[in-house]
Amino acid sequence: MNSTQLFNHIQSKRSFLCVGLDTDYRRLPEHLLEEEDPVFSFNKAIIDAVAPYSVAIKPNLAFYEADGARGLRSLEKTVKYARSVYPELFLIADAKRGDIGNTAELYARAFFENLDFDAVTLSPYMGADTVLPFLRFAEKWAILLALTSNPSALDFQTTIENKSGKMLYEKVIERSQIWGTVDNMMYVVGATKAEKLQWVRAMIPDHFLLIPGVGRQGGSLDEVARYGMNRSCGLLVNSSRSIIYADSSPHFSEAAAEAARKLAVQMSHILDKFAL
Amino acid sequence: MNSTQLFNHIQSKRSFLCVGLDTDYRRLPEHLLEEEDPVFSFNKAIIDAVAPYSVAIKPNLAFYEADGARGLRSLEKTVKYARSVYPELFLIADAKRGDIGNTAELYARAFFENLDFDAVTLSPYMGADTVLPFLRFAEKWAILLALTSNPSALDFQTTIENKSGKMLYEKVIERSQIWGTVDNMMYVVGATKAEKLQWVRAMIPDHFLLIPGVGRQGGSLDEVARYGMNRSCGLLVNSSRSIIYADSSPHFSEAAAEAARKLAVQMSHILDKFAL
Repeated sequence: MNSTQLFNHIQSKRSFLCVGLDTDYRRLPEHLLEEEDPVFSFNKAIIDAVAPYSVAIKPNLAFYEADGARGLRSLEKTVKYARSVYPELFLIADAKRGDIGNTAELYARAFFENLDFDAVTLSPYMGADTVLPFLRFAEKWAILLALTSNPSALDFQTTIENKSGKMLYEKVIERSQIWGTVDNMMYVVGATKAEKLQWVRAMIPDHFLLIPGVGRQGGSLDEVARYGMNRSCGLLVNSSRSIIYADSSPHFSEAAAEAARKLAVQMSHILDKFAL
Repeated sequence: MNSTQLFNHIQSKRSFLCVGLDTDYRRLPEHLLEEEDPVFSFNKAIIDAVAPYSVAIKPNLAFYEADGARGLRSLEKTVKYARSVYPELFLIADAKRGDIGNTAELYARAFFENLDFDAVTLSPYMGADTVLPFLRFAEKWAILLALTSNPSALDFQTTIENKSGKMLYEKVIERSQIWGTVDNMMYVVGATKAEKLQWVRAMIPDHFLLIPGVGRQGGSLDEVARYGMNRSCGLLVNSSRSIIYADSSPHFSEAAAEAARKLAVQMSHILDKFAL
């Protein structure tokens, strides 16, 4: 999928919502525990519920890897299901990988070929070597951590460089411009730092940004749109727990659909306001 | 395992070698491909071969994850085998993870409880939130990427901070001092930057360092020892491909043993020289 196609899906669904599948076995609705693969059953129901209101799905790999081989099978089935039933969904492996050379290539093959994800999140600490192997796959994306939404993001990401006066996350964005394009590179910029989005937009007017931290972490959707939206939307806003754990009764999927629908309604108004 | 126990193993084996199990299915000796689990058969033979000459074993997770559920089963069997037959080996999951809060906790449980590794490598980009959950496990270690041995390490790790004049990797080492102790935190410092080891040692005289890049990547063992060794050795020097792929014939394990033995002989001389 390229950025134009992604924008087309945003326009037709009137939503730029990404739903994070942080599926924790211990938080599943009780009635699902009798199923053969409770994690997959949960994910399948959530995907069916939120697909009308979202353009992207983002499983966080930790939740599957924590369960070993069984967890990976649930993930494989989840991706296969989403890919076959909702081919328009942009599938993000939230893996935050940061390895190099051969190793990065192996990860790229694992995520893009074996699992058929559209994108992988990557940590930039080790530099270009960690990113370039992912950019060799046609129509696949690398999503670089730039400014994250967690409290200790400020430990290192906002370190100010001596000569340039730029912060580390700005240097990450700037330096990576020669690695990829608007059609295969995005950046994670937390909604909890919405005011910083305007600086990011000044540097990269055309790239898509993946925005965590709206909802429970306190970021505002309106602020994110004000500072971060561009002519092709340029935003994927992620919400995880407030959608997938909206309810733990047998009606969990209706509650998830409703939580996603509410966000999509807000997004639709925002898209209208920006005449997109 | 604490740092004193690790040093004891180093003293009794006269070696501070870590063997990297970067086991690539495509590079296995042909005769192993008929086995039920060729990757495990290979790893088992390598571990048996190198155990007399090494104190640590470091599977790189990418090589197992690239194979999906099957790869994870090979990894589980490998760790279980090493743990039960060679309880003195320090087992490192080279995962370079960098996730936060709940997610980091899940990874910690996966690596320390389900798989029983002693240590995990972590990327510090997202700050304390990525490291602290790993430090809550007794006798388990977090190994932080500081200055890595790949060419693009210099993209960001040597960024000089405005006020302090310190490089980013120095800031990582300095700031993380309050997170853990010499008994649960190590740092990755590449052998290709051996002269920088003396600055690292000035900052952290007592921590263990995990040193990649000796051998094929061009680092020198003598230089690493000169700049990096402390009173309790304080070094784990990793070698991967030059040991495990020393030979691809049915005699691969003898060749691996010989390659590990040669390094251990050098290390033994170094330990003698430092009177350790």
